[in-house]
Amino acid sequence: MTRIHDDPATFADDQLAGFLDLYADRVRGVHGGVVAHRGDGGPQVAVVIGGGSGHYPAFCGTVGPGMAHGAVVGNIFTSPSAAQAYSVAKAADQGRGVVFSFGNYAGDTINFGIAADRLRAEGIDTRVVVVTDDVASADEPSRRRGIAGDFTVFKAMGAAAARGADLDEVERIGNRANAATRTLGVAFSGCTMPGEDEPLFTVPDGHLGLGLGIHGEPGIRDVPMLPARELAELLVDDVLKHAPAGAPGRVGAILNGLGTTKYEELFLLWRHVAPRLRDAGYAIVDPEVGELVTSLDMGGCSLTLMWLDDELEPLWRADAYTPAYRKSAAPVAALREPTADELAEADAVVTAPAASGAARGLAGTVRTALAAVESTIRSHEHELGRIDAVAGDGDHGRGMLKGITAATARVGELGDDVGGGWALQQAGQAWAERAGGTSGVLWGAALEAFGRHLGDTADGYPAATVVAGTREFATTIQQLGGAQAGDKTLLDALLPFVDELERRVGAGEGLAGAWTAAAATGAAAATADLRPRIGRARPLAEKSVGTPDAGATSLGLIVTAVADVLTSQEEQT
Amino acid sequence: MTRIHDDPATFADDQLAGFLDLYADRVRGVHGGVVAHRGDGGPQVAVVIGGGSGHYPAFCGTVGPGMAHGAVVGNIFTSPSAAQAYSVAKAADQGRGVVFSFGNYAGDTINFGIAADRLRAEGIDTRVVVVTDDVASADEPSRRRGIAGDFTVFKAMGAAAARGADLDEVERIGNRANAATRTLGVAFSGCTMPGEDEPLFTVPDGHLGLGLGIHGEPGIRDVPMLPARELAELLVDDVLKHAPAGAPGRVGAILNGLGTTKYEELFLLWRHVAPRLRDAGYAIVDPEVGELVTSLDMGGCSLTLMWLDDELEPLWRADAYTPAYRKSAAPVAALREPTADELAEADAVVTAPAASGAARGLAGTVRTALAAVESTIRSHEHELGRIDAVAGDGDHGRGMLKGITAATARVGELGDDVGGGWALQQAGQAWAERAGGTSGVLWGAALEAFGRHLGDTADGYPAATVVAGTREFATTIQQLGGAQAGDKTLLDALLPFVDELERRVGAGEGLAGAWTAAAATGAAAATADLRPRIGRARPLAEKSVGTPDAGATSLGLIVTAVADVLTSQEEQT
Repeated sequence: MTRIHDDPATFADDQLAGFLDLYADRVRGVHGGVVAHRGDGGPQVAVVIGGGSGHYPAFCGTVGPGMAHGAVVGNIFTSPSAAQAYSVAKAADQGRGVVFSFGNYAGDTINFGIAADRLRAEGIDTRVVVVTDDVASADEPSRRRGIAGDFTVFKAMGAAAARGADLDEVERIGNRANAATRTLGVAFSGCTMPGEDEPLFTVPDGHLGLGLGIHGEPGIRDVPMLPARELAELLVDDVLKHAPAGAPGRVGAILNGLGTTKYEELFLLWRHVAPRLRDAGYAIVDPEVGELVTSLDMGGCSLTLMWLDDELEPLWRADAYTPAYRKSAAPVAALREPTADELAEADAVVTAPAASGAARGLAGTVRTALAAVESTIRSHEHELGRIDAVAGDGDHGRGMLKGITAATARVGELGDDVGGGWALQQAGQAWAERAGGTSGVLWGAALEAFGRHLGDTADGYPAATVVAGTREFATTIQQLGGAQAGDKTLLDALLPFVDELERRVGAGEGLAGAWTAAAATGAAAATADLRPRIGRARPLAEKSVGTPDAGATSLGLIVTAVADVLTSQEEQT
Repeated sequence: MTRIHDDPATFADDQLAGFLDLYADRVRGVHGGVVAHRGDGGPQVAVVIGGGSGHYPAFCGTVGPGMAHGAVVGNIFTSPSAAQAYSVAKAADQGRGVVFSFGNYAGDTINFGIAADRLRAEGIDTRVVVVTDDVASADEPSRRRGIAGDFTVFKAMGAAAARGADLDEVERIGNRANAATRTLGVAFSGCTMPGEDEPLFTVPDGHLGLGLGIHGEPGIRDVPMLPARELAELLVDDVLKHAPAGAPGRVGAILNGLGTTKYEELFLLWRHVAPRLRDAGYAIVDPEVGELVTSLDMGGCSLTLMWLDDELEPLWRADAYTPAYRKSAAPVAALREPTADELAEADAVVTAPAASGAARGLAGTVRTALAAVESTIRSHEHELGRIDAVAGDGDHGRGMLKGITAATARVGELGDDVGGGWALQQAGQAWAERAGGTSGVLWGAALEAFGRHLGDTADGYPAATVVAGTREFATTIQQLGGAQAGDKTLLDALLPFVDELERRVGAGEGLAGAWTAAAATGAAAATADLRPRIGRARPLAEKSVGTPDAGATSLGLIVTAVADVLTSQEEQT
């Protein structure tokens, strides 16, 4: 919906006033529209474009060096008057004549025609180039409406004028550009005039209006909405079907959004449009994907092709600098593709450091522990989900399983010569990438920090080193997640576990025994009575009281599983 | 609604593929995002920005010379993973370190933080600049979300890096730019995720969500929709209320559209924003009005100010050339304001030519005739409306009255020394400008042509000259309107009138008598049985059969009224 306005009746004038304030350094307002400040070259043929408002950047947004010299600004979707066109042309004229150019609509044709007569009567040679690119609007090319192809025609003439072409030449080029341009559009939804609650027209739900005009003029037919690939095929194939006779194998292209259809959608469509054009044998020259001719908040898009020969191609490629359309070859020409060395450096995979014998031994423990964790999570997946569903979205079991599965798979791909520190780092990265969600990212980062702390160069991994690694694990989760003890998160099991482990190992206890006792402490931590104070569970805080935290529960399960691994390893040695 | 997609689950990757195809001459795709080709200067500190997709131009649209060196592209509205951020930074790094910058959201903070740790562990010095511009999101500045102020912060850092600043400097400038930037946004409507039928969130009908976040995060409150002026006041006053302490009197400004809110609406709003800022004592530097940080098809806008001191201002003004944002001082600097001579020439009002005595006499007849026409149209306004309403929109009487009233008023303003030809031309211009619609334009142009044919230099205006003027009148309507006899338009009364007038005057009859007889012929022309073949009445063609054409009827009334004027003038002389 069009929502920002004061008096809807003065919308067109009011928006123009804002435009003129914004671009006062490059254009000036005159009765009926906008005239570009002149450049420092000699006088140029004045290309004066125009039509109704509501189509920005058409028309005043493309006034400036390399494009139009003036734009006549009518009311919304309404032709400007002859007096407006006359006034803008009079101000834009630099003594070398005027070319009026606009889309083929009855009102514009009449009013610009009257203005042209009046200018000629005053001795200002004035020509008229009418844009007729919309292949859906009529079989007979000269009766077709003008839509996004306005842009290619205006650009060709603006570039020619900027190069000093005379009036005959600019007119001739405009007509050639129009003869070389074809557009097909589709609409997904209508647009709403300022002050109105209902759209000017509608497209049936789940359909697209094929060939619907930019003011809602009748199209060819409504068809059910298509996936992007098929929509691209429809647009490309139909525009190519209307290719000018003897057309060259190069095209300028515009994939134009009508208002509500956004850039991401247009890029997605371009992904299919470009290869289909190339498969048809065309070289695509300087394509434009974006909003060049819109219709307020209408949903839809159009594909325009201009077939480029040796005369039109440089005009299409030429620089321009207007409020809405700016193109400069120089900054792109100054760029260079990355060198092979740079690419190699960027893509260089960090390889595992050489591992000590002790580190390689530790890797075995890591593998065994990860397998045990995967096993316990797999058997508790649904229980964890049920606990999480009380005040969350119930995906904790599934997320943890995705994480640990990715971690064990990654470690399984590592060679036998890596150390335990590297294995834990790789496990953490895989976990974070696959598990998703905040808990996945935290578990992954914490495992990675644990592994980094252990390293792979030590001659041995005494209990104190492992304890310091678990502290690193906990600190990472605290820092990244921003939670504190008592917030009803996994920290409420993790911190008691690490504290107890530190205490026992500090008192001289062996790792396996200390870990087993600490795991019991962690697993027993009572989070059921806590209220969540962080994260997405917060809004449902009351509802969760009486149920333990899912993250604390899974942590308890995991440290318990690891305790069994450590105990059985100690028994074996 | 977001409509163009294939598999909605792969929307973000699919649109990125199209973007990379489109801009293959200036960026390359890497795992997790986009890296800009390097310029030909020396290596730069790499500014790597990012966040979820759906915000184009944020983030990949602002990668290029003068802005960012890489963009990490997450799923829609979802933080990219740490692995993605790491990968893009690794590829973007030019050996001078990396600054990550992104809006303040938990997922982004965690993932970019992890990536930064990993890069540092590999010896790539990496800093993090978090954008916190959204004054509606928290009282404590460091807890605020990042929205359109992303752009000012990225731009300041990109410009600093392009000038060769080192890592400490780029980081420092980023933090300064963030500390100098404030944004307040409003939402009019929610956005729809690809593949979904319902919006992600809604704003109550007729309301705006003040401070609503770009993913629908809670704002301050919903308020009834405001006229543009009040909306501008709300935005300006609230952002100024949060001005940094000791802020300078210059601001860079962004009036940002969120997706469905169009450029014309933003210009209209800017019309109020700019003077209010100036009234508050601010100089506005290089304002940007348009889409810089969007949210799919969300309706709404935001105002961002960056307070500019001597360090930040040149960075804000600096050139940039990216897919979506291109700025260059040179083309604007090359422009010049029009000279006084050029302005005078452009604005020169064409003055009435010196009129002969006969022409001045003719002017009296024109005035009298126009007054008579106004009188008859006024008394038949409603009747003409009723006729028109049968198959049209019923405004013919009203439109004709507006036209003739404007014409008589304009002629009334002319001095006594103008000729009749000039008076008719002025009458025609006024008619066309005020009456509106095709019939107003045709009547105006035809009167103007009539007047131009008569001219103001003749020693006399014999009947043959007047007859030729009426033929000119008819030809103008035929050529501009494209209608033929029998199409059920005013031509079906006009052509018989002119034909009969020509025949009688050609046979030697006096003007008043011939006109009176021809007027009777014209007024009697039976259009009731015709079917419309042109214009907006065509769809209702059958309905109009049995009713005369309103335009033909008014033409008959007018020539009859003029006949009376000519007759009474002939009697007086």
